[in-house]
Amino acid sequence: MPDTIVIPAASDFHIHTRQDALMKMVVPCIAKGGVSLCYVMPNLKPPITKTEQALAYKAQLESLAPDVTFLMTLYLSPELTPEEIVKASSHGVVGVKSYPRGVTTNSESGIESYTVYYPVFRAMEEVGMTLNLHGELPSDVDQDTCVMNAEEKFLVHLRQLHQDFPKLKIVLEHATTKAAVETVKALGDNVGCTITIHHLQLVVDDWAGQCHNFCKPVAKFPHDRQALRDVILEDHPRFFLGTDSAPHPSHLKECAHACAGVFTTPLAIPYLATILDSFGAIDKLRGFACENGKRFYDIKEDEGRIREITLVKQSLSVPDGYSFGDHQDLRQGTVIPFWAGKDLTWRIVN
Amino acid sequence: MPDTIVIPAASDFHIHTRQDALMKMVVPCIAKGGVSLCYVMPNLKPPITKTEQALAYKAQLESLAPDVTFLMTLYLSPELTPEEIVKASSHGVVGVKSYPRGVTTNSESGIESYTVYYPVFRAMEEVGMTLNLHGELPSDVDQDTCVMNAEEKFLVHLRQLHQDFPKLKIVLEHATTKAAVETVKALGDNVGCTITIHHLQLVVDDWAGQCHNFCKPVAKFPHDRQALRDVILEDHPRFFLGTDSAPHPSHLKECAHACAGVFTTPLAIPYLATILDSFGAIDKLRGFACENGKRFYDIKEDEGRIREITLVKQSLSVPDGYSFGDHQDLRQGTVIPFWAGKDLTWRIVN
Repeated sequence: MPDTIVIPAASDFHIHTRQDALMKMVVPCIAKGGVSLCYVMPNLKPPITKTEQALAYKAQLESLAPDVTFLMTLYLSPELTPEEIVKASSHGVVGVKSYPRGVTTNSESGIESYTVYYPVFRAMEEVGMTLNLHGELPSDVDQDTCVMNAEEKFLVHLRQLHQDFPKLKIVLEHATTKAAVETVKALGDNVGCTITIHHLQLVVDDWAGQCHNFCKPVAKFPHDRQALRDVILEDHPRFFLGTDSAPHPSHLKECAHACAGVFTTPLAIPYLATILDSFGAIDKLRGFACENGKRFYDIKEDEGRIREITLVKQSLSVPDGYSFGDHQDLRQGTVIPFWAGKDLTWRIVN
Repeated sequence: MPDTIVIPAASDFHIHTRQDALMKMVVPCIAKGGVSLCYVMPNLKPPITKTEQALAYKAQLESLAPDVTFLMTLYLSPELTPEEIVKASSHGVVGVKSYPRGVTTNSESGIESYTVYYPVFRAMEEVGMTLNLHGELPSDVDQDTCVMNAEEKFLVHLRQLHQDFPKLKIVLEHATTKAAVETVKALGDNVGCTITIHHLQLVVDDWAGQCHNFCKPVAKFPHDRQALRDVILEDHPRFFLGTDSAPHPSHLKECAHACAGVFTTPLAIPYLATILDSFGAIDKLRGFACENGKRFYDIKEDEGRIREITLVKQSLSVPDGYSFGDHQDLRQGTVIPFWAGKDLTWRIVN
């Protein structure tokens, strides 16, 4: 068991970098967390639906973190055209993100309306852009669909999309279930899957009454968590880190209706190393966090630009909160991170 | 569809009446909620383990609500003896409550240690006391046991207890699953089951990030909720109201680790009528809330003492909170009720 690990700075293939004051706190934390490349989700207010928006946002992010590579995405919506796909690709936009609410109705048949996006998907396939799926059906009591089975029920659509667009790169984002892991494994080389840090640790009990562990998709059964751990233990090349780090001010978490999201950016790799080590997978850190995602996306970085990070096995206390902006109310200007106040077993020393 | 319903004041066969300032707020609300008989849970600090404690607590409750009948229980623990059972019964104590944490270890085999309580159960069977079960296994990641399957995994123990003590009255408390409903239905006449108000309404989505809907057992899948509704629709005589109303001050709900419990006492029957009406079961209100439980427990009330309540189909707004005690911090002195700020469709007019 080594007490020191040197790896290239990691890649986070699913991050929410926010806007305004919150963005200014979050983005400089990326490098401190051990990450040098981020795949940026487009769900801003308003969402990023145009190439110009993506480029303008990218410029903002780069000004806050010049040493980090930002890969940009568009938000799938009915306004998105094949022409915009070609344009976006030519400007370096890498992917298109589909959210459940992007479909026309809150029903199983609503999801079937992916077919309205088929011209867009065809264009993406041709230019080599990636489709990023938030893989959950909308909850529907009449269909017995709820947060606990919404991902598993979505998988039929993943299979259908891959069948209809075998050359389209598709990533099932933030997988939480054994069913999702098995489905992705069974599909072809163009289907990848991100796993968050927190879903490698949490089960349903951990978000029952614990708002800071509440996210979407919700953490599931222990056997689901084990499936996520197992696919890392087997070093599967199409599974890679996407933190889905999603900061919210604490007054929007500790309240009657908590926002969904877990904040892991400032200590991403220390969290991950601690958790991987806890189930005997510390030797999988490099592949899962540094290599698999870039290989899947076929991202060539300037080798000279990639810094190394050194992790040592030393205790590190997670801060109780991260302040941002200029708020009278402390709660409105604080983000509570994952595992606040707890001790990690690995830290970054450079 | 009648716009006015006259029924006897209802019975709540599972209530938490708390202590001190909170008790003084809660107990006078019982009658206002349309309830005249309560089955009182013993999980105070310290828990009620002796006859004297139960009688002293009963006297406190009666002084706050002279028109309400309080049926008392003891907390199952290794100190409870067959002799104490005989004594408690002779003083009118009706039941013994078993909590998962009352067993010796946090494991499946721990629950097997119900056998250590068999002399107590034998005495209860002989004197006619009832065993009230919080029917959940403790969560255990290695056994894939979590809040979503803890009740279903417990049911084997319910079946075993009923087989070993066929004459012992057993109530499975606050059932939340189709599996529990089917198990209770399949067992003999001495096995009953309470259903809460909120579990007739909530599914897992409703407590995901919503602390005021978080309780134990947690609400489950839509098909589980439907099973609870169906057993009421069929007017099954061994299923009856037990609200599990469990008030907590709001600062212990809207926080990082929320206490489990939903507060329904002040509007119990208006909530219940509203929900039953929503799925076509308003005609089952009397049986479920007024008759089935008393028949199961063989409780004879002085007919002249039972007041009637009149419900009318009129909108009623649920208060945002109920104040208690004398707290500087508003949050520490407020309980947020179920469905705060929402409109009910039935109200009590007398």
